[in-house]
Amino acid sequence: MNRRKKIAVIGSGFTGATTALYLAQRELGDVVLVDRPEQENPTKGKALDMQEAAPILGFDASVKGTSNYADINGADIVVITAGIARKPGMSREDLVSTNAAVMTAVTKEIVAHAPESIIIVLTNPVDAMTYTVYQASGFPKERVIGQSGVLDTARFRTFLAEELNVSVKDVSGFVLGGHGDDMVPLLRYSQAGGIPIEKLISKERLEAIVDRTRKGGGEIVQLLGNGSAYYAPAAAIAEMVEAILKDQRRILPAIAYLEGEYAYDDMYFGVPVILGGNGVEHVYELELTTEEQEALNRSASTVRSVLDLLKS
Amino acid sequence: MNRRKKIAVIGSGFTGATTALYLAQRELGDVVLVDRPEQENPTKGKALDMQEAAPILGFDASVKGTSNYADINGADIVVITAGIARKPGMSREDLVSTNAAVMTAVTKEIVAHAPESIIIVLTNPVDAMTYTVYQASGFPKERVIGQSGVLDTARFRTFLAEELNVSVKDVSGFVLGGHGDDMVPLLRYSQAGGIPIEKLISKERLEAIVDRTRKGGGEIVQLLGNGSAYYAPAAAIAEMVEAILKDQRRILPAIAYLEGEYAYDDMYFGVPVILGGNGVEHVYELELTTEEQEALNRSASTVRSVLDLLKS
Amino acid sequence: MNRRKKIAVIGSGFTGATTALYLAQRELGDVVLVDRPEQENPTKGKALDMQEAAPILGFDASVKGTSNYADINGADIVVITAGIARKPGMSREDLVSTNAAVMTAVTKEIVAHAPESIIIVLTNPVDAMTYTVYQASGFPKERVIGQSGVLDTARFRTFLAEELNVSVKDVSGFVLGGHGDDMVPLLRYSQAGGIPIEKLISKERLEAIVDRTRKGGGEIVQLLGNGSAYYAPAAAIAEMVEAILKDQRRILPAIAYLEGEYAYDDMYFGVPVILGGNGVEHVYELELTTEEQEALNRSASTVRSVLDLLKS
Amino acid sequence: MNRRKKIAVIGSGFTGATTALYLAQRELGDVVLVDRPEQENPTKGKALDMQEAAPILGFDASVKGTSNYADINGADIVVITAGIARKPGMSREDLVSTNAAVMTAVTKEIVAHAPESIIIVLTNPVDAMTYTVYQASGFPKERVIGQSGVLDTARFRTFLAEELNVSVKDVSGFVLGGHGDDMVPLLRYSQAGGIPIEKLISKERLEAIVDRTRKGGGEIVQLLGNGSAYYAPAAAIAEMVEAILKDQRRILPAIAYLEGEYAYDDMYFGVPVILGGNGVEHVYELELTTEEQEALNRSASTVRSVLDLLKS
Repeated sequence: MNRRKKIAVIGSGFTGATTALYLAQRELGDVVLVDRPEQENPTKGKALDMQEAAPILGFDASVKGTSNYADINGADIVVITAGIARKPGMSREDLVSTNAAVMTAVTKEIVAHAPESIIIVLTNPVDAMTYTVYQASGFPKERVIGQSGVLDTARFRTFLAEELNVSVKDVSGFVLGGHGDDMVPLLRYSQAGGIPIEKLISKERLEAIVDRTRKGGGEIVQLLGNGSAYYAPAAAIAEMVEAILKDQRRILPAIAYLEGEYAYDDMYFGVPVILGGNGVEHVYELELTTEEQEALNRSASTVRSVLDLLKS
Repeated sequence: MNRRKKIAVIGSGFTGATTALYLAQRELGDVVLVDRPEQENPTKGKALDMQEAAPILGFDASVKGTSNYADINGADIVVITAGIARKPGMSREDLVSTNAAVMTAVTKEIVAHAPESIIIVLTNPVDAMTYTVYQASGFPKERVIGQSGVLDTARFRTFLAEELNVSVKDVSGFVLGGHGDDMVPLLRYSQAGGIPIEKLISKERLEAIVDRTRKGGGEIVQLLGNGSAYYAPAAAIAEMVEAILKDQRRILPAIAYLEGEYAYDDMYFGVPVILGGNGVEHVYELELTTEEQEALNRSASTVRSVLDLLKS
Repeated sequence: MNRRKKIAVIGSGFTGATTALYLAQRELGDVVLVDRPEQENPTKGKALDMQEAAPILGFDASVKGTSNYADINGADIVVITAGIARKPGMSREDLVSTNAAVMTAVTKEIVAHAPESIIIVLTNPVDAMTYTVYQASGFPKERVIGQSGVLDTARFRTFLAEELNVSVKDVSGFVLGGHGDDMVPLLRYSQAGGIPIEKLISKERLEAIVDRTRKGGGEIVQLLGNGSAYYAPAAAIAEMVEAILKDQRRILPAIAYLEGEYAYDDMYFGVPVILGGNGVEHVYELELTTEEQEALNRSASTVRSVLDLLKS
Repeated sequence: MNRRKKIAVIGSGFTGATTALYLAQRELGDVVLVDRPEQENPTKGKALDMQEAAPILGFDASVKGTSNYADINGADIVVITAGIARKPGMSREDLVSTNAAVMTAVTKEIVAHAPESIIIVLTNPVDAMTYTVYQASGFPKERVIGQSGVLDTARFRTFLAEELNVSVKDVSGFVLGGHGDDMVPLLRYSQAGGIPIEKLISKERLEAIVDRTRKGGGEIVQLLGNGSAYYAPAAAIAEMVEAILKDQRRILPAIAYLEGEYAYDDMYFGVPVILGGNGVEHVYELELTTEEQEALNRSASTVRSVLDLLKS
């Protein structure tokens, strides 16, 4: 009568596993962590280790590792973290085509086993990969969503809070557009305790912070030496999953399918949305200054060029 | 006037990093993650990634990566996860002597920089390593504690709850003695919803569960293929840190210094204790059956033999 | 697609209102607080006040006050706290007949508006009132449940933890039977950190604690001077609601319909059950000593005598 | 070594008691609930009832009711909720002089028993009562703080979120000035998901919402019929206590002592501050439009007129 929600996380790397942990900690539902057959044992190992933390962390949720897609049967939400990271010397084309193939294969399984699910994509290049999943799934647009803005704003907020030496709880940030160097932080929509940050932080420092935010993923890659960020990306996903499963109607930046909004058509792009029980329930359109619109257009053409790669 | 607590975690491997995450999530204090100079960048990378999750997870705590022990100045608690894991072909003597050297070096830094701290040790073989730290620190016994029982009972509870198909919140377990194959689960002190588990689960199944618990660490090692458990071990540590920093006077199994309790002297061994603001505030002595006492003696001699190795 | 759960709380007195608060705080679903038409405004006032706490307490749940039962349409769970408290000079018969009439009227509305719901009853005398609701609803037995044991054990655990000066998190208690002076605490099933409390607390002190537990409701009544306990009773209800809505399969003491268990038939009585998504999913039967069985029988005949009152 | 914080709440009415509950739930420290000798028993009753909820709600904190100020010895924070509410027919002068006398008496006890504490005042008229406590205590200004803005913005956010049908988590509001009809909501500093609310809600609806916010306290009073709001006011206090005890450096609106800020001198007034371990650690001064400054001046003269009453 009251059944637990079921959440599938595809890809048991650091991001997938950490996502599973956060979801279980929040008791959002039972978690199924899926990876390829050759990764079955490590996937089971991570899931079991998490499960054994349940008595201490105090959660009632099962965490299961598997390589069998039948285990995601009836999942309410599917998170896709699978795919490869770009390695030194790898061309962008290779990254895109490899991960697009992964998306297509994974989506086929999702359609077969969880046809009513909502899909959240994290795999890079995320705007294009979300588009790929959308097309491969045949799902309505509101049920296929990409993650980038929650992570980008989290980094932005972290740096702003550090600069101001105040609680990160009271700092908000705002970014539009594609993930990466072209993201468009809207400073006039970012605040600390409601006060516009432009009144609190000098132009120079703000520019440095925006720049650091844009390169936030790269900063972690460089420090780790061997791998990329996962604690914050996984948190971003967990936030989106919670918004959907609890039908919270959160206003969050997300990669949503656009059909004319901001004058873009038939593409997935980072915009502020309402995230609720049905997935993307609304796309907010903001008035932009000429400068902002131009920055957004630059970001859009980067995304568009990857989509073109995909189609070719 | 009201300052944040400061918690140092020595060793930024999976267990150390996951411990740092849990501590930050619980807002128990600011966390300093320490590793060797050659690991400085990855350590900083993990810490920064966690810090960037703060706006999403909603915690006000700084997480800092460092290789400079000066950064742990004034820490209230220090968790030691540093050291090597036993590799195939490595003799037990080599493991013990290598890790004992690590403990001694780390402890020297702790004494220098955080002389009022409480130390929790996780490095294996943990009973002996806790003893090493105790001796090297010169700290009073209540301020040097080892972790094993919280993890062991968590695994035990997980398996019992799974067997009964009930919430893990209502299942309690009880283990005495050293970590590993010699641990002594006291079945008559283990319950589900207050009901003795021996009334709920058959003898055969209970034996299988006890056996699986004893080998719980190995099961994860085997599944992962390359590494050992960290989600549950880190949770165990976080639970102990919370009990101390919040002065909760929790009754938890921990590795405590014995001076005559259970007829053991001058050794660290797994017993039920009260964990509060001063560290180990009480050791509970239980009446044991002859069989239980013998099992405990076997476990104690295993621990003792490692201590002998150390001294030689 | 993912809709919020809906929880109706009948009776907006202190217990009902505090229950609504706890439920909202846990984000278990949207809460509808219902009272009689003449209480409509105060009910709306309490609900609005709670709703205005949401931005601070951080919950996404609506809290609505109403006197219109149509507002509970489709509720997943209904909690009944309505009814009168026994006043000085009031005969027990009057209390029983008044509250039975309230139960019958309320149940009629529940059946009309939330026919698939699970009902939890708190109104006193709770064993008999749960029976009344069961009969009036025609619901299957697993979907009508009374609360008493979670509260009784909470009081018992509080007193035990205070006596031992340890964390209440590590103390478990166990009671059987009807609510009130006849409740049957099973000391051998009560522990601190897994250790039987009979080994930790003297017989005299334990007897005093059991006695205080039995009279726990009265102690609060006497102190307040004008009213009865609500913080702990409401917490007990919230715990049961959470167990059901999250399908946790908690092992909790609850008032369940017995059909032969413990040799009782066709009555509601306090026993350990599994509480999950379907309501009462299992009743645990324990082996009792002769003394315990006799105590239980005394408690059962008290409950039975109230039922007899009801039927006459 | 690690001792629990101690929080005293003066006044055990609904607001005081609910504050105590929230503080205990968050495990912020041990709570002492104080009221006059003739209220000693009900105060003890409420505290005991809360304490008995601890095993269920899962908190390790003691809650003690008392009429003896010696019990607040060494408190880290003292919350003052004591005083009378304005009754029909009571002149404003009578309210002010009665509550000022209560403040003076209570402050004397605080100075005697908790000379290092930080004081948070909730008693109305709160701007003047905070000033009274400041003068009576001789404490430095950063350690005497009044609450109004956290509550006012919470109400504002609730109404905005309801209007937009979005999560209250993503709506922020901003108010300046005195509590009550003269409060000055700064609409251009209020947002939903970072988007200025003036772009999302029509002018007419916004005016209605601002008006409802101003009269938010009165709306609850009218609905309840007999009493005033406590769920949201207590939440506001708990938020401030947490910010201080955890040294979070939150940016919150609070009633702070002004010495020239916004051109006001020697008065307590609602402004955005940084709230951290030392109390009020910074006052933010905002550039105001002429219209905003005039509105603020009106609010300030209302506060000033009450102060004049006090001095006469």
